Amino acid sequence: MDLFCPIPISQYPHVLLAHGGGGKLMRDLIGGMFLAAFQNPLLETQHDSAVAELAEKKIAFTTDSYVVRPLFFPGGDIGSMAVHGTVNDLAMAGARPVYLSSAFVIEEGLPMETLWRIVRSMAGAAKKCGVQIITGDTKVVDRGKGDGVFINTAGIGVVEHAQTVAPQNVCPGDRILLNGDLGRHGMAIMAVREGLQFESRIESDSAPVHETVLELLRAGVQIHCLRDLTRGGLTSALNEISAAAGLTLLVEETAIPVREDVHAACEILGLDVFQVACEGRFAAFIPERDAPHALAIMQKVSKDACLIGQVLPPLPRRSEAKAGPNFNPSPNVILKSAIGARRILDMPTGEQLPRIC
Amino acid sequence: MDLFCPIPISQYPHVLLAHGGGGKLMRDLIGGMFLAAFQNPLLETQHDSAVAELAEKKIAFTTDSYVVRPLFFPGGDIGSMAVHGTVNDLAMAGARPVYLSSAFVIEEGLPMETLWRIVRSMAGAAKKCGVQIITGDTKVVDRGKGDGVFINTAGIGVVEHAQTVAPQNVCPGDRILLNGDLGRHGMAIMAVREGLQFESRIESDSAPVHETVLELLRAGVQIHCLRDLTRGGLTSALNEISAAAGLTLLVEETAIPVREDVHAACEILGLDVFQVACEGRFAAFIPERDAPHALAIMQKVSKDACLIGQVLPPLPRRSEAKAGPNFNPSPNVILKSAIGARRILDMPTGEQLPRIC
Repeated sequence: MDLFCPIPISQYPHVLLAHGGGGKLMRDLIGGMFLAAFQNPLLETQHDSAVAELAEKKIAFTTDSYVVRPLFFPGGDIGSMAVHGTVNDLAMAGARPVYLSSAFVIEEGLPMETLWRIVRSMAGAAKKCGVQIITGDTKVVDRGKGDGVFINTAGIGVVEHAQTVAPQNVCPGDRILLNGDLGRHGMAIMAVREGLQFESRIESDSAPVHETVLELLRAGVQIHCLRDLTRGGLTSALNEISAAAGLTLLVEETAIPVREDVHAACEILGLDVFQVACEGRFAAFIPERDAPHALAIMQKVSKDACLIGQVLPPLPRRSEAKAGPNFNPSPNVILKSAIGARRILDMPTGEQLPRIC
Repeated sequence: MDLFCPIPISQYPHVLLAHGGGGKLMRDLIGGMFLAAFQNPLLETQHDSAVAELAEKKIAFTTDSYVVRPLFFPGGDIGSMAVHGTVNDLAMAGARPVYLSSAFVIEEGLPMETLWRIVRSMAGAAKKCGVQIITGDTKVVDRGKGDGVFINTAGIGVVEHAQTVAPQNVCPGDRILLNGDLGRHGMAIMAVREGLQFESRIESDSAPVHETVLELLRAGVQIHCLRDLTRGGLTSALNEISAAAGLTLLVEETAIPVREDVHAACEILGLDVFQVACEGRFAAFIPERDAPHALAIMQKVSKDACLIGQVLPPLPRRSEAKAGPNFNPSPNVILKSAIGARRILDMPTGEQLPRIC
């Protein structure tokens, strides 16, 4: 999409507090920029709420705020990310994404041109994902009280099948599939922030994954659970599922695809690639009998899709008395290395990568 | 509600970047604070999206970010406001509010105790409004890149009737009703910010109004349109409706209830009370025959509810040539003063009151 910005940028080169004040300037910003980019009849009613007719009564509902820095990075920007991230959260519940809201908290002084680039990117991403942005909000905070722009998108999806896709559904024996290589989003951001140069540029993996999920459902694959690998990366995702299901997960380190440059960047920065956020990657928990079929479908979208492990019954706990003070009584995610050594993949405790999404 | 904060505040007296990092601290914050306060089975699944069954396929969807300063003010706080404001936006479309999302953008260093007060207030407001907070998100931005906390809530409501409540539905002859006195929210905030003292303290009017709207619908009142009087106050609300409907609105200044202390505060600060934001006030556009019944219902909730004007056909335009350079060719909201003088109530252009909601 290459729309000409309908706001006269020469007149208002920067966002002013008054653009969030409820008066004429706000109306011009909404009418000129947001309606022009997101155009759809529901948004155009400009009512306090959009009223829509859903195809199903069973819905998925999610929200995410995006505070990523920098606003533009190789392979994406905050605008497209704000669409992909929320679309993906809906897909993780097995829903077809339908409607998004978009709420901007803008710092006074943001160049209007920057806002327009972001809004255009959101509109393009929404169109590609087949979702409509039907309601929105604009706030402007005083200079020094924000950071350029934060975007919140909430999303509604419809669940068109009888399956329950949720962590509590994971069973011993389930296979764990991954839809591609790890860590590109986080390292694309960090490479920019740290000024790292590699032979090939690392591009974010930010992308919508709902089509892959819907394809699995259409093919009749039984899906026990899905989880996208955002903040905290694969490690957090697996630990969350393991905790919710009360089961042990066993994953094979060598099966997990990581690009050479991503590996190198992680080594330079001292980061654990399994904890690095992705924005277009998910783990799928699939019953053993459906796993080959599911993998074949996922590999049609990405050749890097792979089987990385399986779900085991909960490990028997040793008594804490025996174990000493640092013993973790329920080691729930186990990583098997190339030489067969097993280590516990523990929930990260600190902030590895702030403002990554 | 007077829950004991389940996060050990002595251990983490302030919010750290790591509380938004996707690791253990974030899990503890979500599990300990948000789940404890908002408790409901849908939120407790802790999935990427909440999956819910709606009673109707016709829904209303809205979003609002709250950036009000100070965080706590007479009559309310950012937490209860974040619930009331979104509940009210759903009500303005004639919907019964059902589900909210809540997304926090927290500045590193926010006292944990402050966050807990806000979260408790949100939980209390949600309970009173009969809505559930079923999905959420937490981001932490570095010190100096935010301002304490911003909250976004998106909301889903169900439309349980066949009426269309929307600006495009307003007709000539419709009566304009108001559900109470004007300007208290804005002036409560400004009085705190400016250190103004009055004999009686001005308290915000922040409150949910959905019960009044649902009562009107249950009573069989035909509602053409509803609009809450937030940013830009009565003036913006009426101008928006007038523009959307393409009709002239005529309101009687003397009919509009404003408290004496609010008047005084506006005079001191040089503000136009008709442009001051309310958080529990709305204008209703009701066909003439249903207006008395509607007013009686609204007066049961607030004795200040009143008839303030009516909708006229579009005014015939004078030719611009005749009118001189400053003539506004479509004066759409007309205010009739006590002595019968008529003036145009124009859309505010500047930022009267930043960070009011």
